[in-house]
Amino acid sequence: MKEYLKERRDLVDLVIEECLNELKYPKVIAEGMKYSVLNGGKRLRPILLLMTLDLLGVQEKKGVPMSVAIEMIHSYSLVHDDLPALDNDDYRRGKFSTHKKFGEAEAILIGDALLTHAFNLITREDIEPSKIVELIKLTSSYAGVNGMIGGQMVDIESEGKEIDLPTLQYIHTHKTGKLLMLPVECACIIAGAGDERREVLKRYAELIGLAFQIKDDILDIEGTFEEIGKPVGSDRELLKSTYPSIFGMEKTKEILDEKVEEAKRLMFDAFGEEAKWHMKLADYIGNRRK
Amino acid sequence: MKEYLKERRDLVDLVIEECLNELKYPKVIAEGMKYSVLNGGKRLRPILLLMTLDLLGVQEKKGVPMSVAIEMIHSYSLVHDDLPALDNDDYRRGKFSTHKKFGEAEAILIGDALLTHAFNLITREDIEPSKIVELIKLTSSYAGVNGMIGGQMVDIESEGKEIDLPTLQYIHTHKTGKLLMLPVECACIIAGAGDERREVLKRYAELIGLAFQIKDDILDIEGTFEEIGKPVGSDRELLKSTYPSIFGMEKTKEILDEKVEEAKRLMFDAFGEEAKWHMKLADYIGNRRK
Repeated sequence: MKEYLKERRDLVDLVIEECLNELKYPKVIAEGMKYSVLNGGKRLRPILLLMTLDLLGVQEKKGVPMSVAIEMIHSYSLVHDDLPALDNDDYRRGKFSTHKKFGEAEAILIGDALLTHAFNLITREDIEPSKIVELIKLTSSYAGVNGMIGGQMVDIESEGKEIDLPTLQYIHTHKTGKLLMLPVECACIIAGAGDERREVLKRYAELIGLAFQIKDDILDIEGTFEEIGKPVGSDRELLKSTYPSIFGMEKTKEILDEKVEEAKRLMFDAFGEEAKWHMKLADYIGNRRK
Repeated sequence: MKEYLKERRDLVDLVIEECLNELKYPKVIAEGMKYSVLNGGKRLRPILLLMTLDLLGVQEKKGVPMSVAIEMIHSYSLVHDDLPALDNDDYRRGKFSTHKKFGEAEAILIGDALLTHAFNLITREDIEPSKIVELIKLTSSYAGVNGMIGGQMVDIESEGKEIDLPTLQYIHTHKTGKLLMLPVECACIIAGAGDERREVLKRYAELIGLAFQIKDDILDIEGTFEEIGKPVGSDRELLKSTYPSIFGMEKTKEILDEKVEEAKRLMFDAFGEEAKWHMKLADYIGNRRK
């Protein structure tokens, strides 16, 4: 599995670098975009897109610009999240966050530039224009006020408050979930997959998104700086409600296992052994140490 | 002219409100988006798009989502520009700027949401998908690192420095110019206009963009708070290089007149009397008091 992930990650990193090398001026934006995206991320979202295209029998060259676009949107959201006015994180994956490295005004504009450039990349997909339009419609919906940004806003509003489970679930399904559903649904659009397969894949992505977020909450308590690349315990410091703060650690780990198992079962029932990478990915998310 | 502008502005405001009323949750983002866009702006960019479609013989219902999208991008750029880390402006058109009204974290996310939603709106245009893809390609280019964001970055870098004319021109053509070229070129894409007409309209937009920016510099010195809706003299306070600081006021006004006249002549030569609204708009930009 590590080998498989590494191969895809290297491919995605190569294309990201190519796309960003086109950009030269103003230097601080071009360099800041590169710094923010090429920071050793797991590339989970692009890999999920390429893996799903594979499963649906589409050549991998298709979907690469789209997968890079999603990674740019993910990166922009991290750049803006880390800002002093939001999470005020000085570190990201063990390196300075973008505003610590380039300045605050610069980080705001670098994030804006990544988001804008993502939509430019999608237009470069070598598929029918009507499909490109569908990709952009979905991306702008899932990344916007009804998606990722909505989740981020409610997360901020909830700091220092006791929140109920539906609110915590809204945050998770929107802040993290939508941007994990996006790659599998984009793969379905590119492949022309039917509604039934799309629904299964969407639910799978939702489940691994939840698992990912629950695991994040656990790592924030049990991880080390070296593993998670930022100070441990920052959720508690911000008085964030998390799965462990609501359910306790033992129950939280049970819930994590349930989500991973449900995701795997769903995929196996719909695709059989063909979905082995999707099943392994679900395990990987549940077991990851960073 | 005032009548003509008002009619279009009312149409655009109506559609903006419709589009934003769809959005409900999280409330602060939905309300902040509305507050930031529905703030009595001149709607110059949407009007320019609709006016150009008119000139090219296309029914006005086409282009409305696109024109609202451009206005949202314009608005997001103002929301982010006003932030403490950037221009630190507490007022915008005589009202509190978005971060003063809703908070800084909120304003960052409201800006992000406006930019993201703009791309969603473009996908709603009732035209061939291939044209929608072209619109998005152009929009993401002109609003991005090679366009508006680039101009904004160089503007910030230049604060407190003496800059040369090419740098000032880069700032103007990118920070303001690209987002005025965008509506006329989008109209050309929608109308399927030929390269020659597109070049004339593009140059016209570039010229009125320059005129607009020069006039802004003049108003920052000669205007009143009531007229320009923010404190007078903020450029000087930020030690910004401007046309008046480089050329002096008298010469600056001459240059403004030249740009306006050249823009009008270009349009008259290419379209004759048909372009009367475009010519009037150039005059309006040169003479405006706010």
